[in-house]
Amino acid sequence: MCQCGLIGPARQRRVKNTGGQGMKIIVVGANGDIGQAACAELGQRHDVIRVGRTSGDLTVDMSDRSDIDRMFAKVGPVDAVVATAGDVKFMALAEHTSDSMLFGLQQKVMGQINLVLAGLDAVVDGGSFTLTSGVLDRDPIRFGVGAATANGALAGFVTGSAIEMPRGLRINVVSPGLLDVSVPRYGQWFPGHNPVASERVGRAYAKSVEGAATWQVIIVE
Amino acid sequence: MCQCGLIGPARQRRVKNTGGQGMKIIVVGANGDIGQAACAELGQRHDVIRVGRTSGDLTVDMSDRSDIDRMFAKVGPVDAVVATAGDVKFMALAEHTSDSMLFGLQQKVMGQINLVLAGLDAVVDGGSFTLTSGVLDRDPIRFGVGAATANGALAGFVTGSAIEMPRGLRINVVSPGLLDVSVPRYGQWFPGHNPVASERVGRAYAKSVEGAATWQVIIVE
Repeated sequence: MCQCGLIGPARQRRVKNTGGQGMKIIVVGANGDIGQAACAELGQRHDVIRVGRTSGDLTVDMSDRSDIDRMFAKVGPVDAVVATAGDVKFMALAEHTSDSMLFGLQQKVMGQINLVLAGLDAVVDGGSFTLTSGVLDRDPIRFGVGAATANGALAGFVTGSAIEMPRGLRINVVSPGLLDVSVPRYGQWFPGHNPVASERVGRAYAKSVEGAATWQVIIVE
Repeated sequence: MCQCGLIGPARQRRVKNTGGQGMKIIVVGANGDIGQAACAELGQRHDVIRVGRTSGDLTVDMSDRSDIDRMFAKVGPVDAVVATAGDVKFMALAEHTSDSMLFGLQQKVMGQINLVLAGLDAVVDGGSFTLTSGVLDRDPIRFGVGAATANGALAGFVTGSAIEMPRGLRINVVSPGLLDVSVPRYGQWFPGHNPVASERVGRAYAKSVEGAATWQVIIVE
């Protein structure tokens, strides 16, 4: 169970994020390899609410805006929203259909965008959004076109939305290479890709959440 | 009416594109400002089939794969597919909903992707696909987040699909700034953007269709 004040007396309402310790951070996709790396790093200094599709401190269906609204209503104001979730279909270009390509746009892209749209009223002044893309739109692999398309979309969304963020909110996207812990399952599909230490990936989320930058693709290679 | 052999005896079947004159090129979105620029350039040396949603040599609904298949069946083998069509919603970030963001992903992104998926069997060996994004994922404007997201997605799709293209097929995306001819209607939304001469935009399509490059974002500024 989280130690974040989600259950029990709510901690003092933060009216402005100052980048210090003890932030209240919601991580959606906390059970995945990238989510675990983010939580391991952020959890050292902050109250992390771990959210998954089927397990965690809370569960949410990112494709359902009303379910996200329910989640934010339960959690209350947060200093940062971190999204590390999102499925795409891995398959050959020639095998793709409209539906298989649209799947990634709906799950990975719209899932993370929904978190931002819903979070605009849930994140305190000066807080942040951190999304997650991946290496495949700059260093592609076979069967990766769905992921490459989704990653590019998220980078575009960060650029387009950063300049319209209200109240000093920031938005970045972390774009990690294949994590070391993911190699046993996925390494065979990434010939020649250098695995990235999970600790390095975790620190990218610290850079986005605790730092002051916005409108960035934070590449971890 | 086009002079492309669409109606009347079909010209000799091209079995391999060699980048020369007299290519058979299908331009979807031919009525738009960008489509007209592409057709003006390509039409000087090639047989251009102008396709629109409601008018042109042919009409097509890019969001409907079966309608695209019907179009390709009618046209027969082509040397190049050029996509200059695709709608997005221009609105403030705070006003966007899941539906308004998804609209651009379905219309602009999936529309152009559908043309590629359907065209994999319709383009001759060595032929090409040329998609169209725009400036807003690198030089954003207010109300442009939907376009920025779609543009990034198309760049990602080109990267992901270029390495899996069969039979020497190529794919690029042209990313033009605001066209000079579009300034009267849209210029007020693009403060400080330098309008781009339509002739320069047209030449980018010649570079993609007649050149040998693939996996490129061809920026026109």
